[in-house]
Amino acid sequence: MPGKFFGVGVGPGNPQLITIKASQVLMTVDVICAPKASPKKSSYALKTVRTIIKTSNKRQETIELVYPMVKDRKLMEGAVERNAEIIVSMLRGGKNVAFITLGDPMLYSTFINTYRKVVEKLPEVEVEIIPGVTSLSACAAASRIPIAEAEEAVVIIPATSNLEKLEMLAQQADTIVLMKGVKDMEGLFKALTRSGFGENSQAVVAANIGTPSEEVRIMKLHELRKMKGESYFSTIIVRRESP
Amino acid sequence: MPGKFFGVGVGPGNPQLITIKASQVLMTVDVICAPKASPKKSSYALKTVRTIIKTSNKRQETIELVYPMVKDRKLMEGAVERNAEIIVSMLRGGKNVAFITLGDPMLYSTFINTYRKVVEKLPEVEVEIIPGVTSLSACAAASRIPIAEAEEAVVIIPATSNLEKLEMLAQQADTIVLMKGVKDMEGLFKALTRSGFGENSQAVVAANIGTPSEEVRIMKLHELRKMKGESYFSTIIVRRESP
Repeated sequence: MPGKFFGVGVGPGNPQLITIKASQVLMTVDVICAPKASPKKSSYALKTVRTIIKTSNKRQETIELVYPMVKDRKLMEGAVERNAEIIVSMLRGGKNVAFITLGDPMLYSTFINTYRKVVEKLPEVEVEIIPGVTSLSACAAASRIPIAEAEEAVVIIPATSNLEKLEMLAQQADTIVLMKGVKDMEGLFKALTRSGFGENSQAVVAANIGTPSEEVRIMKLHELRKMKGESYFSTIIVRRESP
Repeated sequence: MPGKFFGVGVGPGNPQLITIKASQVLMTVDVICAPKASPKKSSYALKTVRTIIKTSNKRQETIELVYPMVKDRKLMEGAVERNAEIIVSMLRGGKNVAFITLGDPMLYSTFINTYRKVVEKLPEVEVEIIPGVTSLSACAAASRIPIAEAEEAVVIIPATSNLEKLEMLAQQADTIVLMKGVKDMEGLFKALTRSGFGENSQAVVAANIGTPSEEVRIMKLHELRKMKGESYFSTIIVRRESP
């Protein structure tokens, strides 16, 4: 019988924002797989769970899996195929395997594709997914700017999406959340103001949320456009204010 | 010096989906305030943290605060005013107070208004907000239906919002999440299909997520419309599929 496969959300990066359930799973599995963007870097998700692994009596194996952060679909699919194969061979060997992911496994995570591929290769595998705290919730908590209240509508969109789509959605949204690194602040500013977000709408710009190098800046929307060339902001929340 | 005020997300209702940080805060505060919808009901958030309170050496006081779930703005504001007054008097007495909320404190939670009112009355108070796992993430994990991947855009909207707004947003969205109890399934079906969601789009309908009475049903969009009159579904996720 194959081992059990767990998808585990480890939260925004602060080891204290891991759930009790995730912590229990990580203490008892045989292998912890952690995604990373390049062979040279270390996995941030793995860093987040280091304390948990250390306090466990069990000697879990840890494996870092490379998922190149590229737009090239073939390269990405190749990585998913290779990594799923590694996971499946461990599951076939009877090992219980946890795939950890920052934030939540079901929101823009490499777990989603990997999980599909694992199940394709090993349909009989038992799977359990443990949800996690998103960077979005962490960003709102740190800045004290709500994501939404009352009848408000929220749009979550990757910063890499096209600005036309963003603009159409923003017209009806009360809060816009941009995920996965925003670089074109000028484009974002223009799309939002054209959609009726006033220049004084409140914005939160966050990097490395939940980590010791966390950076959370609260500003007005018009201040955002000046930020080009600055560091890698992984989450932005903008709350509509009429012009 | 007043006590410290904590806003604590306790996750979707499963005590194991509380974060380590939330658990630590709840074990050490003097008072835990839990919102509930009516004087006759008990607080679901409080139920979720019962095990934590029991295992703590500290004897925390627990207070249930009524927030009537009504559209009447004055009634709601009255409740917020009264509950904030109770919290402020405890903080003034030097007590550390945690306000617990299901899911995340910054996403459609009674914490948001209460927090604003507390700070208005007691500007010098120290505040800390602990993010939580949302019902949305829990619903995606239980159903194994992703919230979003790659370039997809997500819209989160209360089921009580008007259907026109929903329809406009749905036109550009890949995933629609309805929060806070959906009753008009027929209206929802029509709005989504008019926005280009195929009748065979995948839908997850969930009630009491994370609790022993959890109910998660996976179906096609066209099956949703038959569900009128059924129990109170707190979270719905619909993923676009072309007609």
